[in-house]
Amino acid sequence: MSSIYGTKIKISIFGQSHSSAIGVSIDGLPAGFPLDFDELNNFLKRRMPGKAVYSTKRNEPDEPEFLSGLTDGFTCGAPLAAIIRNTDTRSSDYDTIKDIPRPGHADYTAYVKYGEKRDVRGGGSFSGRLTAPLCLAGGICMQFLQQKGINIAAHIYKIGNIQDRQFDPVSENEEEMCILKTADFPVLDANAGENMKTAIIKAQQAGDSLGGIVECIAFGIPPGIGDPIFEGMENRISSIIFGIPAVKGIEFGNGFSAAELLGSQNNDAFIIRNDTVKTLTNRHGGILGGITSGMPVLFRVAFKPTPSISAEQASISLSGRKEVRLSITGRHDPCIVPRAVPCVEAAAAIAVYDALLDSQ
Amino acid sequence: MSSIYGTKIKISIFGQSHSSAIGVSIDGLPAGFPLDFDELNNFLKRRMPGKAVYSTKRNEPDEPEFLSGLTDGFTCGAPLAAIIRNTDTRSSDYDTIKDIPRPGHADYTAYVKYGEKRDVRGGGSFSGRLTAPLCLAGGICMQFLQQKGINIAAHIYKIGNIQDRQFDPVSENEEEMCILKTADFPVLDANAGENMKTAIIKAQQAGDSLGGIVECIAFGIPPGIGDPIFEGMENRISSIIFGIPAVKGIEFGNGFSAAELLGSQNNDAFIIRNDTVKTLTNRHGGILGGITSGMPVLFRVAFKPTPSISAEQASISLSGRKEVRLSITGRHDPCIVPRAVPCVEAAAAIAVYDALLDSQ
Amino acid sequence: MSSIYGTKIKISIFGQSHSSAIGVSIDGLPAGFPLDFDELNNFLKRRMPGKAVYSTKRNEPDEPEFLSGLTDGFTCGAPLAAIIRNTDTRSSDYDTIKDIPRPGHADYTAYVKYGEKRDVRGGGSFSGRLTAPLCLAGGICMQFLQQKGINIAAHIYKIGNIQDRQFDPVSENEEEMCILKTADFPVLDANAGENMKTAIIKAQQAGDSLGGIVECIAFGIPPGIGDPIFEGMENRISSIIFGIPAVKGIEFGNGFSAAELLGSQNNDAFIIRNDTVKTLTNRHGGILGGITSGMPVLFRVAFKPTPSISAEQASISLSGRKEVRLSITGRHDPCIVPRAVPCVEAAAAIAVYDALLDSQ
Amino acid sequence: MSSIYGTKIKISIFGQSHSSAIGVSIDGLPAGFPLDFDELNNFLKRRMPGKAVYSTKRNEPDEPEFLSGLTDGFTCGAPLAAIIRNTDTRSSDYDTIKDIPRPGHADYTAYVKYGEKRDVRGGGSFSGRLTAPLCLAGGICMQFLQQKGINIAAHIYKIGNIQDRQFDPVSENEEEMCILKTADFPVLDANAGENMKTAIIKAQQAGDSLGGIVECIAFGIPPGIGDPIFEGMENRISSIIFGIPAVKGIEFGNGFSAAELLGSQNNDAFIIRNDTVKTLTNRHGGILGGITSGMPVLFRVAFKPTPSISAEQASISLSGRKEVRLSITGRHDPCIVPRAVPCVEAAAAIAVYDALLDSQ
Repeated sequence: MSSIYGTKIKISIFGQSHSSAIGVSIDGLPAGFPLDFDELNNFLKRRMPGKAVYSTKRNEPDEPEFLSGLTDGFTCGAPLAAIIRNTDTRSSDYDTIKDIPRPGHADYTAYVKYGEKRDVRGGGSFSGRLTAPLCLAGGICMQFLQQKGINIAAHIYKIGNIQDRQFDPVSENEEEMCILKTADFPVLDANAGENMKTAIIKAQQAGDSLGGIVECIAFGIPPGIGDPIFEGMENRISSIIFGIPAVKGIEFGNGFSAAELLGSQNNDAFIIRNDTVKTLTNRHGGILGGITSGMPVLFRVAFKPTPSISAEQASISLSGRKEVRLSITGRHDPCIVPRAVPCVEAAAAIAVYDALLDSQ
Repeated sequence: MSSIYGTKIKISIFGQSHSSAIGVSIDGLPAGFPLDFDELNNFLKRRMPGKAVYSTKRNEPDEPEFLSGLTDGFTCGAPLAAIIRNTDTRSSDYDTIKDIPRPGHADYTAYVKYGEKRDVRGGGSFSGRLTAPLCLAGGICMQFLQQKGINIAAHIYKIGNIQDRQFDPVSENEEEMCILKTADFPVLDANAGENMKTAIIKAQQAGDSLGGIVECIAFGIPPGIGDPIFEGMENRISSIIFGIPAVKGIEFGNGFSAAELLGSQNNDAFIIRNDTVKTLTNRHGGILGGITSGMPVLFRVAFKPTPSISAEQASISLSGRKEVRLSITGRHDPCIVPRAVPCVEAAAAIAVYDALLDSQ
Repeated sequence: MSSIYGTKIKISIFGQSHSSAIGVSIDGLPAGFPLDFDELNNFLKRRMPGKAVYSTKRNEPDEPEFLSGLTDGFTCGAPLAAIIRNTDTRSSDYDTIKDIPRPGHADYTAYVKYGEKRDVRGGGSFSGRLTAPLCLAGGICMQFLQQKGINIAAHIYKIGNIQDRQFDPVSENEEEMCILKTADFPVLDANAGENMKTAIIKAQQAGDSLGGIVECIAFGIPPGIGDPIFEGMENRISSIIFGIPAVKGIEFGNGFSAAELLGSQNNDAFIIRNDTVKTLTNRHGGILGGITSGMPVLFRVAFKPTPSISAEQASISLSGRKEVRLSITGRHDPCIVPRAVPCVEAAAAIAVYDALLDSQ
Repeated sequence: MSSIYGTKIKISIFGQSHSSAIGVSIDGLPAGFPLDFDELNNFLKRRMPGKAVYSTKRNEPDEPEFLSGLTDGFTCGAPLAAIIRNTDTRSSDYDTIKDIPRPGHADYTAYVKYGEKRDVRGGGSFSGRLTAPLCLAGGICMQFLQQKGINIAAHIYKIGNIQDRQFDPVSENEEEMCILKTADFPVLDANAGENMKTAIIKAQQAGDSLGGIVECIAFGIPPGIGDPIFEGMENRISSIIFGIPAVKGIEFGNGFSAAELLGSQNNDAFIIRNDTVKTLTNRHGGILGGITSGMPVLFRVAFKPTPSISAEQASISLSGRKEVRLSITGRHDPCIVPRAVPCVEAAAAIAVYDALLDSQ
């Protein structure tokens, strides 16, 4: 079902950009876990809009209200449901969308699927706003994972043609992790970060937008997690990652570049370190046959440029069945990649924690 | 569950490389459809080994035996089950694998997950041989799709650093389609194909292997198929595609290259052609918001090089907990990409047909 | 997953008796349907407490707040989520439950499963209060069904040893249907109803409680709905009906009494009426081989007596590991059967509508 | 999906009464378990036909062929698939069924659902023959359960109006268990058994058939297994039990008779025995709030009389749209209840083992 993900834990997401609230119900969380609400709010703030020049001006506190699933701040075994009110909605911005689908958006496909009564305001249920409940669920799963010694971090790997350096796929650098988790603009190479910001501002000033790539790594997952064929870690992670709007690709380990390599260049030698089986390199991205190897799980996610641009574009009038010109106004991120970083972490946390519970 | 895929149709795959048989049960196929067994066998032959220098020497007829689900050659509404006998198995080839995991293979992760009684012969259930029942199910779904005017084709887009030209993402070229479906080595540019073959032979002679990319396109899917968030077409397709061994990445439409583009370069203008809404270009790969737009669905799949190489590699002895050297003998494809082409088509056919039935 | 039901529509229920709210998210409802909110509220009122002597004194308006899934009162295609606030909670009533499990309740099994942090207030997520979101979802599905000419009704068939007459399993009596849907105490035989009320009051005065049976009928379901083996109508209906607390049995058509009959007494002759295939009698309860026959679907559900009784009972102290005596105070229905009638209708409506969508 | 059951283990059943084979694939069985094939065959023999006067004369060895999932007789972690060949099929017996649906059978509903190409031979996929793969899967799960100290047994509780005595719901009687598992006609009271046999023969001689009730008990399930609301033990067990043809009702513990009781008569006092929490009585059938209490799980299943009777019945001609008379010939059980006993055990074993794995 389109709004539900998971095997041992199931998250059900609901809401539209301009409905009275958005939210999530999480079924299957183990009982007796003390949620750290401050940490969760800090995590949610990382995807919040309005922080910087490269982000939409929509401004909402995004404080979740917890409806169920807790006693005294501990999970109680019942589904944990939480909602976030939509407060800063300006529906008048979206009057023409109903008739003229915006290029690159889901306006036309939603029209075909749901007809006249679809919710066009702010993109309806296709809005990036729906990543708020995803982050809520992911931030909670992250805390469960941390308790088990599993850490997940992500950074902006690429924006336009400016590239950050890659994660070290073998060893965790704790300091690096901490910086990314508190950074306003999470990159490994501060210089590259400044260039990216400049590129975003430049695109914005031209009434345009930019895409990019997020790289994500998970340390500490024990070997043996995930299943063969259709429930491997790649299947599980990709099927939630494509739930984030604007994602158009995913690759694990060497990914697409493995296609250019010889087997001798892409295989990872097995070694023994501290009496534990490891691999010398980690081109396989921590997954072999769908199952974790004990090495860090590493993947990259491609985001298309924000389709909302102020430059005039060609579209059609659904009512008139004729071609028209369209200029999009309103508040939009010129590049969603910075705010997508915690979304990718959140999705990974849900997939990994679910797989972990499913492999017990 | 790891061996089951689908929503309205469910395929259950079973078997190991050297079990007495492999097979599939397909539940949910509409009743009353006349299967074309010749066409199905031709489809299965496309992934069969033993055809050429770049393929394993394992030689099996791979004729499916249909156990249930048919009356007089028509689907009857009950699950369609079929098996393929494993006949050319040489289990003695695999005696050392049990103790020494092969780099790049699932030997070690299977050991962690399943323990001493895992099936190591020929890779067990992680073997590429399991794509035979996938192709069987996919070949059947393909016939249902064709009846509805939907065609799926794939080609070798890249092997090593040699690249075929891309599909035209907008218009179907019937002649091209036919060539690909009957070709021994499906490429759009015959020259590139020859160079690829040469590269494979060269790698093989060096005791090495090569990876590559398969590009797949589906024409004729009506708009409105697929669902938002977790059951979009990208989620559905990626979660079956990663069921094919050696896949390490997938991208839709412009995919990873969209990350380098401006919104004005990546958006597709809506137009009207023959009173139908289309897009002028198809950088979105036929999917917007998880839902088909009526344009061809286009994606690319990255395959890592065959991990089995005859060059000596570093590994470990599980029993001795020490590092050892390993040379892999036996029959292996120096490049699995040519045989992966029908597998990608099959997986796509299952995902698309399932989504189609689910959107009715 | 324990709080999610359905195939083509999925309902996710959340909340506990004393959490800040209870609610439901319904995914998969067709877009463009105008909800009748008055009718829905009338339906919800039928399960509301506080109406009569035989019902708990807990008094809450139970007005749902709709959070998402609607535009201008029409379904929009996105998940429809609604919550009901818990306002009249008196948590002090439940202080001893945490240590002393109440006989017949889930207190002990919840303790084993969820540990110290389970929510004991008012029965937590095991409370009958969770049938409010079930009725909300069911009341909505009911409106979709009515639009397709399908009507579902239920009545109190038995309380203690007092029996109402059974539904006519062959023909719908419109007048009867209307009476049941507006009745405070839905029975077919008013006399039996008065006797039932007397029996409930008598049990209550004795500090005791009573069980009963609800009979439910669905008219207008076309033939061919439901699937063989594990997704037959019986499987689908029973797996949601056992989601209502206190249900201990279900039977379809002749049910348990069929066990005493000869085949010649239990088979239903096929006939043709108005050019339509029907059966002369309806001992099969409208389902043959898991699939609807076009005859009314008929089933009965057994409810155990409310386990909360004021008479002293034997239990144990979990902390002291010793046997103790327990007297339950607080507000409780002496017989939940009258309020269970709309719950059974709601569950049936969800199962039938889901099966209907799944058979298209 | 109609042929698939389970959460942590998934069984996929396929086949029709007269297809070349029937079978099952079981995904999710833990690796490393040594199957006892003799015990499994003995279990399968208990449902085999042809044993006695009260059983169909169809005679097949029903020896399963194991296709996958095993190494050296141990489960290997891959799906375990096995098939049973259909050898004694006489399709000519069923020529008229295609046009004239048999009362009480799924002939008509299958016609509506699947149309002309449905498999009418022997009831197609609606045949009781499909319980052979169910028993195969159940017999395997039973061995996993026994290893964990869980025993499941069932007996004929009622045939027509002749009643066996009930299981003691509190204590396991080992001797009784052994007798039931090896009995040709499993009853607790041998006298009742003789009367039942006489009744079956009498019905058969009259060209008629008889229904009955099977009672099933599971000892040794730890407390805390199962989940609230829609995945309680009652939901899980009922949704597989209704997969057995001819089942029309199920009740747990006191079941329908609880409806007639006072709360004080139906509640079970908690006690402490050997430092373990138990209940003094077991009217709740080992399940409270969907979760096991540690007491034996007890339920009863109602079977309708075999619909195939040789007495003339009223039906219709589908082609002629007119009412006709029908006499059924061929081989049929005059009472399926004796052979249903291992089927109920098998279904219970699958549901219980799946719930057990799901609660870890």
